[in-house]
Amino acid sequence: MEKKILLTDCPDAKGLIAKITNICYKHQLNVTKNDEFVDRAQGRFFMRTALEGNFNDTTLLEDLDLALPEGAERKLVPSGRKRVVLMVTKEAHCLGDILMKCYSGALDVEIAAVIGNHNNLQPLVEKFDIPFHWVPADNLERAQHEEQVIELVDRYAPDYLILAKYMRVLNPEFVAHYQKRIINIHHSFLPAFIGAKPYQQAFERGVKIIGATAHFVTDDLDEGPIIEQDVIHVDHGYSAEAMSSAGRDVEKQVLSRALQLVLEERVFIHGNRTVVFK
Amino acid sequence: MEKKILLTDCPDAKGLIAKITNICYKHQLNVTKNDEFVDRAQGRFFMRTALEGNFNDTTLLEDLDLALPEGAERKLVPSGRKRVVLMVTKEAHCLGDILMKCYSGALDVEIAAVIGNHNNLQPLVEKFDIPFHWVPADNLERAQHEEQVIELVDRYAPDYLILAKYMRVLNPEFVAHYQKRIINIHHSFLPAFIGAKPYQQAFERGVKIIGATAHFVTDDLDEGPIIEQDVIHVDHGYSAEAMSSAGRDVEKQVLSRALQLVLEERVFIHGNRTVVFK
Amino acid sequence: MEKKILLTDCPDAKGLIAKITNICYKHQLNVTKNDEFVDRAQGRFFMRTALEGNFNDTTLLEDLDLALPEGAERKLVPSGRKRVVLMVTKEAHCLGDILMKCYSGALDVEIAAVIGNHNNLQPLVEKFDIPFHWVPADNLERAQHEEQVIELVDRYAPDYLILAKYMRVLNPEFVAHYQKRIINIHHSFLPAFIGAKPYQQAFERGVKIIGATAHFVTDDLDEGPIIEQDVIHVDHGYSAEAMSSAGRDVEKQVLSRALQLVLEERVFIHGNRTVVFK
Amino acid sequence: MEKKILLTDCPDAKGLIAKITNICYKHQLNVTKNDEFVDRAQGRFFMRTALEGNFNDTTLLEDLDLALPEGAERKLVPSGRKRVVLMVTKEAHCLGDILMKCYSGALDVEIAAVIGNHNNLQPLVEKFDIPFHWVPADNLERAQHEEQVIELVDRYAPDYLILAKYMRVLNPEFVAHYQKRIINIHHSFLPAFIGAKPYQQAFERGVKIIGATAHFVTDDLDEGPIIEQDVIHVDHGYSAEAMSSAGRDVEKQVLSRALQLVLEERVFIHGNRTVVFK
Repeated sequence: MEKKILLTDCPDAKGLIAKITNICYKHQLNVTKNDEFVDRAQGRFFMRTALEGNFNDTTLLEDLDLALPEGAERKLVPSGRKRVVLMVTKEAHCLGDILMKCYSGALDVEIAAVIGNHNNLQPLVEKFDIPFHWVPADNLERAQHEEQVIELVDRYAPDYLILAKYMRVLNPEFVAHYQKRIINIHHSFLPAFIGAKPYQQAFERGVKIIGATAHFVTDDLDEGPIIEQDVIHVDHGYSAEAMSSAGRDVEKQVLSRALQLVLEERVFIHGNRTVVFK
Repeated sequence: MEKKILLTDCPDAKGLIAKITNICYKHQLNVTKNDEFVDRAQGRFFMRTALEGNFNDTTLLEDLDLALPEGAERKLVPSGRKRVVLMVTKEAHCLGDILMKCYSGALDVEIAAVIGNHNNLQPLVEKFDIPFHWVPADNLERAQHEEQVIELVDRYAPDYLILAKYMRVLNPEFVAHYQKRIINIHHSFLPAFIGAKPYQQAFERGVKIIGATAHFVTDDLDEGPIIEQDVIHVDHGYSAEAMSSAGRDVEKQVLSRALQLVLEERVFIHGNRTVVFK
Repeated sequence: MEKKILLTDCPDAKGLIAKITNICYKHQLNVTKNDEFVDRAQGRFFMRTALEGNFNDTTLLEDLDLALPEGAERKLVPSGRKRVVLMVTKEAHCLGDILMKCYSGALDVEIAAVIGNHNNLQPLVEKFDIPFHWVPADNLERAQHEEQVIELVDRYAPDYLILAKYMRVLNPEFVAHYQKRIINIHHSFLPAFIGAKPYQQAFERGVKIIGATAHFVTDDLDEGPIIEQDVIHVDHGYSAEAMSSAGRDVEKQVLSRALQLVLEERVFIHGNRTVVFK
Repeated sequence: MEKKILLTDCPDAKGLIAKITNICYKHQLNVTKNDEFVDRAQGRFFMRTALEGNFNDTTLLEDLDLALPEGAERKLVPSGRKRVVLMVTKEAHCLGDILMKCYSGALDVEIAAVIGNHNNLQPLVEKFDIPFHWVPADNLERAQHEEQVIELVDRYAPDYLILAKYMRVLNPEFVAHYQKRIINIHHSFLPAFIGAKPYQQAFERGVKIIGATAHFVTDDLDEGPIIEQDVIHVDHGYSAEAMSSAGRDVEKQVLSRALQLVLEERVFIHGNRTVVFK
């Protein structure tokens, strides 16, 4: 018996749940978990249906296409391990957390490779028998550097590209190449402290809470649909450096959680927002 | 156009979501929100369906009864304000919070009356033009006292009875009279610190977190299905009294949240546990 | 035996704790709680000393003045109930929470009066036998309106002025009149969503967390030293209105906590930041 | 210039802060952070003083001994990296988290060795070039097994022994050998769910929150002074296994935080409770 996840994203209409679950029922598939959401303002329907049984993908999708309204997107995803490539610069905390969660089985994903514009994290990555590629950016145009990165990433054909504290801005061409497949951790509680040195900014503003944001990457730096956010309480006793250190703890937790949500096919992109079925 | 909530609780079977939503569709009812849960170990299916449209309750329920497996319970509840009676002893915090939330519109409920075994909270209740009944327990057998309370409560025919820090143990007869309709706030993080003086117990044990539990009342004191729990961090600087004071803050929040969940028909009782669709 | 709190805020120097606590010791005062913080970057020392004993304020302060470095500020505050005036517009949640906490004894403060630019909250305030003054702003220049407010507030000589969802911008003259004594609740997690309709902004950005900020008011709208912040998790299911409603819950908690910290003399203003001894 | 931490734990008396900070001042030591707490019910004083300067330990301690009341304990601890030995059974999550935090610099500690009663974690430990010792317990009396462990541990002379999910009960002799130096992570929110299979217990009770507790080990299993606790929200959708998995996340966070507090000399043991200066 197989397990698959059916993702439906379409204009809202009456009876959609009935239609979709009916088709599953006729295909003798068991719905083990169903989540749906209707954005009534925009008239859009989202449903995630976890199914069990013997699948005939072609006829199932054909039946759905007949039943769903025009403009529907639907996807039948085999549950099972996905493949990612991580991109890093110098900081170990997010990378280390993902490596360890993957090793201990807490995160079910294949890390195909890690690419860094610096090489100080190579020894850590190689401890886990994962290839590390150093692609230095020195003396290169951004576009040239990204071409080298793309060439490498594409070799591994990953489902997602995870920016685990990759500290370089990406060209629109790069982002377009992996549309809706790049996940970033932003070292602040977006939309507060956009831009550089958010912890220094937070320190100067005297905030009592700092946070982190995991989001899909779009052209607009620091924008893109938010997947997950969390915060940590700080006080006057935290220097900018201590805030940064506390921030690293939230960053890695938020990125890990976002990654897990995405890997489990729980996240729909909906304009510049997300629908996340937890 | 009316709004109602359909609650289904039945043995699990294939195609239940399809069957139920189909029937709703045939009745031209729009599903505005659907939540379901299957307890696979026990083979039990729970679904909460928020509906909009023109209802013919009788035929809708008949159609459901034909479609649902034997042993099914289903209920069609008009959305709209419910009525509660509160029971109190001497402490104002939970009572005050509910009164104020009700006044400001944050909680949509009719408080039909408040009954106290002491009368110090009478002035507070009467500020809000709500009847307060003082039923002193002095020199009475527990059963005698409870008879007086029941006689009063039943006059108001409440949907739920809320023990807002009512500090007397209830006889099984009383509990049976309002089966699955009594909600209590337990002044601890159940099952820790069962029984009297939980904050003193917590202080002596040197815990770093204290909590509160809202639950349905069953015969077994401090047992009963848990609806909601939350905690607050404390440290060595908290005396037993300071813990108690911090505890009052969690108690009122947890009770209010549990009450809201119950009023919105989001809570199924499932043996000694609950299924809560948030 | 009296209780007072000594607040010291001065340039850092060696031996300050020793000097100050020595003087207290010589005065036969018992230190029941001492907190200090040194901002090493700016060379500033902050200390809050809770004292018990028989006080000779004049000689104690003289002794301190001899011992402390130039530029020191020190204050000896009798512990005991402070007096506040609340300012409101139309929303009941923050006001109601403070009124109820005050009534139940959870917050130890005298609410001398409530002033509103609308009058819909008058009945609520009067339930608690507190004077409510309606000062409509219609057809008045901001300065004229504020003069009327100041005239009223000053009659009550409050220690602090609490803006409990007072939705009008204040002139610099008004702020200057109550320097470091006006506390505001900002309906967002500053510095995110500055300005109007923060919940609408938050909704549109698709955030997963919303928050509130209590701060002292300075000329710069939405700036001013932050006293307390907190957040609440939301998801795609929250409309802008639902976010606003969840936000009200955080707002009232954050304002209450900030108020309590200020009333207990736990907050130092330090440039545009605060030092808060919890 | 050196940094040391002075820890004072003595019967309460007037002027203690003054006396201690005076002595530091006379020794020309700068107090960079001072925390104190008085347990007034028990008349006990605790102070942690972070000092900077040129230390003459002998005369400093002599001066303190003259000034402090009878029954005082005081300790001058060089700040700097401590050494620990970890003990594990089969689960990787706590061990992995500590190894990675240590590697990335988030936790400043020397892991001298890891001892396991199983050997499945050996490859993970050796990735980090740390010795792993397998001490199987099969066919051994508990006392015999523990003798072998003690013999090994003592070779490394660790400051603390960390039970990172070591699932065997310890004899009183073992505990006495490392008095106040063994830290355990208990896989529940003590005192709830004492004993075996806490997540199964939590599942059956239908709780909405699960937690973890880090504590010093005493003879009494599941007792011992609590250092740190935290919780995670769960719901009806969590199986016992899912609760266990969520629990592992809290366990590792709580153990890491407790370890850091202990390493930074922030924890006093006070009877069966702790005083923790955060």
